[in-house]
Amino acid sequence: MVSFPPLGKTNPGDDLGLGTRPGPGRSVNKDGTFNVHRKGLPAFRGYELYHRLITMGGFRFLGLLFLGFLITNALFASLYLGIGMEHFVRPGGEGRLDRMLDAFFFSAQTLTTVGYGHISPRSQLVSAVAALESLLGLLSFALATGLLYGRFSRPHAQMRFSQSALVAPYQGITAFMFRFVNRRSNQLIEVEATVSLSFLEAETGTRRFATLPLERSKINLFPTSWTVVHPIDAASPLAGMGDEDLRKAQAEFIVLIKAFDDTFAQTIYQRTSYTADEVLWGHRFRPMSSVAADGVLEMDVDLVDATEVVGT
Amino acid sequence: MVSFPPLGKTNPGDDLGLGTRPGPGRSVNKDGTFNVHRKGLPAFRGYELYHRLITMGGFRFLGLLFLGFLITNALFASLYLGIGMEHFVRPGGEGRLDRMLDAFFFSAQTLTTVGYGHISPRSQLVSAVAALESLLGLLSFALATGLLYGRFSRPHAQMRFSQSALVAPYQGITAFMFRFVNRRSNQLIEVEATVSLSFLEAETGTRRFATLPLERSKINLFPTSWTVVHPIDAASPLAGMGDEDLRKAQAEFIVLIKAFDDTFAQTIYQRTSYTADEVLWGHRFRPMSSVAADGVLEMDVDLVDATEVVGT
Amino acid sequence: MVSFPPLGKTNPGDDLGLGTRPGPGRSVNKDGTFNVHRKGLPAFRGYELYHRLITMGGFRFLGLLFLGFLITNALFASLYLGIGMEHFVRPGGEGRLDRMLDAFFFSAQTLTTVGYGHISPRSQLVSAVAALESLLGLLSFALATGLLYGRFSRPHAQMRFSQSALVAPYQGITAFMFRFVNRRSNQLIEVEATVSLSFLEAETGTRRFATLPLERSKINLFPTSWTVVHPIDAASPLAGMGDEDLRKAQAEFIVLIKAFDDTFAQTIYQRTSYTADEVLWGHRFRPMSSVAADGVLEMDVDLVDATEVVGT
Amino acid sequence: MVSFPPLGKTNPGDDLGLGTRPGPGRSVNKDGTFNVHRKGLPAFRGYELYHRLITMGGFRFLGLLFLGFLITNALFASLYLGIGMEHFVRPGGEGRLDRMLDAFFFSAQTLTTVGYGHISPRSQLVSAVAALESLLGLLSFALATGLLYGRFSRPHAQMRFSQSALVAPYQGITAFMFRFVNRRSNQLIEVEATVSLSFLEAETGTRRFATLPLERSKINLFPTSWTVVHPIDAASPLAGMGDEDLRKAQAEFIVLIKAFDDTFAQTIYQRTSYTADEVLWGHRFRPMSSVAADGVLEMDVDLVDATEVVGT
Repeated sequence: MVSFPPLGKTNPGDDLGLGTRPGPGRSVNKDGTFNVHRKGLPAFRGYELYHRLITMGGFRFLGLLFLGFLITNALFASLYLGIGMEHFVRPGGEGRLDRMLDAFFFSAQTLTTVGYGHISPRSQLVSAVAALESLLGLLSFALATGLLYGRFSRPHAQMRFSQSALVAPYQGITAFMFRFVNRRSNQLIEVEATVSLSFLEAETGTRRFATLPLERSKINLFPTSWTVVHPIDAASPLAGMGDEDLRKAQAEFIVLIKAFDDTFAQTIYQRTSYTADEVLWGHRFRPMSSVAADGVLEMDVDLVDATEVVGT
Repeated sequence: MVSFPPLGKTNPGDDLGLGTRPGPGRSVNKDGTFNVHRKGLPAFRGYELYHRLITMGGFRFLGLLFLGFLITNALFASLYLGIGMEHFVRPGGEGRLDRMLDAFFFSAQTLTTVGYGHISPRSQLVSAVAALESLLGLLSFALATGLLYGRFSRPHAQMRFSQSALVAPYQGITAFMFRFVNRRSNQLIEVEATVSLSFLEAETGTRRFATLPLERSKINLFPTSWTVVHPIDAASPLAGMGDEDLRKAQAEFIVLIKAFDDTFAQTIYQRTSYTADEVLWGHRFRPMSSVAADGVLEMDVDLVDATEVVGT
Repeated sequence: MVSFPPLGKTNPGDDLGLGTRPGPGRSVNKDGTFNVHRKGLPAFRGYELYHRLITMGGFRFLGLLFLGFLITNALFASLYLGIGMEHFVRPGGEGRLDRMLDAFFFSAQTLTTVGYGHISPRSQLVSAVAALESLLGLLSFALATGLLYGRFSRPHAQMRFSQSALVAPYQGITAFMFRFVNRRSNQLIEVEATVSLSFLEAETGTRRFATLPLERSKINLFPTSWTVVHPIDAASPLAGMGDEDLRKAQAEFIVLIKAFDDTFAQTIYQRTSYTADEVLWGHRFRPMSSVAADGVLEMDVDLVDATEVVGT
Repeated sequence: MVSFPPLGKTNPGDDLGLGTRPGPGRSVNKDGTFNVHRKGLPAFRGYELYHRLITMGGFRFLGLLFLGFLITNALFASLYLGIGMEHFVRPGGEGRLDRMLDAFFFSAQTLTTVGYGHISPRSQLVSAVAALESLLGLLSFALATGLLYGRFSRPHAQMRFSQSALVAPYQGITAFMFRFVNRRSNQLIEVEATVSLSFLEAETGTRRFATLPLERSKINLFPTSWTVVHPIDAASPLAGMGDEDLRKAQAEFIVLIKAFDDTFAQTIYQRTSYTADEVLWGHRFRPMSSVAADGVLEMDVDLVDATEVVGT
């Protein structure tokens, strides 16, 4: 029996912008992206390309850079071969491969502006193409500089969330809780949490949303971990609910974290979600920190998932 | 008969800063710029030039870069020709064109710091000019690096608004509404909307402003589209108004959107406006998203303008 | 007779942080800097040097860059001369000047990484110094790239304030007012103004502060100009004051403006102040904008100072 | 006798996120870092490496750059030696050292893209390796550009706090106070302070927190120094406490400062703390500023620690 709050107990402001008709499955993926496929986005705008180059994986990015370098050199080498290698002062032999490689490496030496000069233009036409290529090279590396800086200076995923959320006794009542740590070495401050419950209303079959009140919704400093706690009191939409009820209602707990990154002076947002399958009932978190021999508080980030059955 | 609210029902805080005497036509253009021509701006300050290079179109920017490259080389080539090509070690012939091209390409090889060396300074005077040119080249490309990064990292127009705003039945009453999508692949959060009505007061002939209360003025997540709704209840300045009334009053709906761009950690503002001509009466929006075969919610950005007559 | 409010009518929160003992003269200069000389600042920290290079005038900055280029080359030239020019392959003559210039230009070609090669290291010692110099060159130009970008992307003074503030009749009562325009072509939004009055209390001889309530303290859009108005009603600390009273009390109106720069997604603050000498009594502002022949609203930035005597 | 407030007088919102079980010693170090050792952080993620390169000391950073330059050249030199120096056109002798140094300096000239050409590839294999090296060189210096910019543009420690906090008579009652100055030449505005007291509760042995109300918690302008004052009235958790009580309770005053840096348009946070050992009883601050001969207010940053015994 699903006893989630009727329409009167939620308000439109609670729907987070996820709408009332999301498909089956979670609305927010574990990594915080939205579980929506958008069609019709412009495919090849400059800023869109930039956005993808900034957010793709590091190895893929380096691979693309290298590929671009090869292709550009191959194109210019074709141009030089078309003009004819007799327009060059060059040390290489007269075989076809030698001519091709000379053209390719002259291109590389021009694009990177190394310009040893042991291969050099003999004719003005080659000089003109080479001038263009060196300009292109400089602009490409100007772009690469911006991309590399953009990749590193943009906000990165900071938090590591516990894999499961818990429902367990807490200070006399029961509470829904999860925790997270900062897995980077920088210092986060003014950390805020918002937790919303999304569920399928049995009567109408539409998705509904309710914001869950938290014991604390903001901390000023974040040196270790933060266990976010929603006390399940009588007013909570979770009051009287069990594991099975959550599954039936396709419940999803949507977590929004906001923080300020002290090192880069930028505001960071991070999202995640817990589905009914990711809620452990009757478990509690084990401590992550202990006082080391030298008296310093020590926290082990890898313990963020450590839980134990209540009563053990 | 224009029944817009009398002076007592608006307050100065509602005027948005647009003043009481804007000219005919819209105050805010579709692309969010202000419909004002400003005279007397300083024409050639460094940051102003930077601002224009950052905001101009991509092809124009590349064209300017290329033009600057050509002109700089032409200028330095003239200098070298003035000094005399006999001050160079060079492979070219003694014809006038050869001398000019050698000067030009030596300049290009210096400016880009390729420096093959097959053309090189024979005299100290040429060396001095070349040293200057290579310094200028490096600084120019330093500047170009900053410009390229500035162009890509600055905020870009994100939202695509429905071409028309609608007035249609909505949950029992009538409502004014429009919708918009994020047409970039990045994720926007904490999206806020403000809608103001600007109209010509019949009695005084001056422009007046009224902020329209919205059903929801903020959403936390923005995975698909957002239909912004102003319910036309008895308190609304639109209560009892028809298409003709809006046109007579030269009504303009001014839309301000604020959002946070998760990828670049920057706050984004976007503006647009709807004139009376851009309001469709008795139309409603058709859904933009559907559940695909694989169960994933799919949204088609191109459907943002899809409306249908109410009752069909 | 000075009738400024007694201690009870101001509160500590009004003092803006300027303290109660500023010296004679204005606290805030016209350009918004504080009229305070700070001793004991660390003279040569990296970020402090960066800060000065970022904020100094453009010509001075370019001059410093050029000077640095000359000095670095002179230093390395001395090194090469000390090693001996016989360690070089070079085209120049054996005169002292030729040797010096060859050393200097080899340095320049190394620092800028042009490297023509017509002067080149013959010995390993010279190669080692040259390797260091080219590394230094690349790092210097990396630094210059950052400096140039930092100079352009940092917030710049935006507003042009009217040279005088006015006290004049305004909608039935008297008001203190000044106005300002955005003298850049970018678009500012969410503009906020705070105006505080600083004055010398006759009884105690100490500086006191009072925040002046404004007719409007925020505008959403800022397409033209904004006239900031403090109505001098009975509750105003200016009630009943005249020109002479303000001068005796060494009154200073401190203006803080906050805005959001749409183009660069950054919050901008600007300050200025008006002393009693800069207040015009019985003047009012003339309009800055008019509707042009083509129906577009036109604003002339240079009219920001245009005032006229009330009654003319 | 420790008379700190019982549990009822503090609330969870006051705990700042430091938790209830920090180890002995201070929670927040003088430089604002947290006194916690975090284990299990990913050691070698790109952004983590970037973060460390951005925040490490300047000399260490330059040393690493130089080391990287040496090692990269040594690696490529080994490659070239492995291929064989007979694949090069080069001026050096045939001794083993000469061959090694020629390989090393050819590498350096390629990595920095100087490319004099007096040593140059004779075979295509060497050309291929050199093309790779010049690409690597350009990317490395693109990275160095971003790192240098990132180092300078990131927020830096701004405030210099008085070494001791004071408890002294203040306007009729007693107050806890400390002061700080901006030790950089930039201008900070909208400065906010939060002070919390952390102490060991005698009955439970757990750490408790209380936010201390301040006479003023925000100043708009920060031209000189700011003395932050917590008046010890009857409601203060410090009421009736003495030096010995604070030491017994292992009291720690945790200070959070937030400000806006006008030059870089970024929000700055800074933290520090005062332990019971760092509180001076019965001392007061001596003035830091005086009016110079030319009438300008002069502040000596080095006087921030100047205190005197009350009554002298």
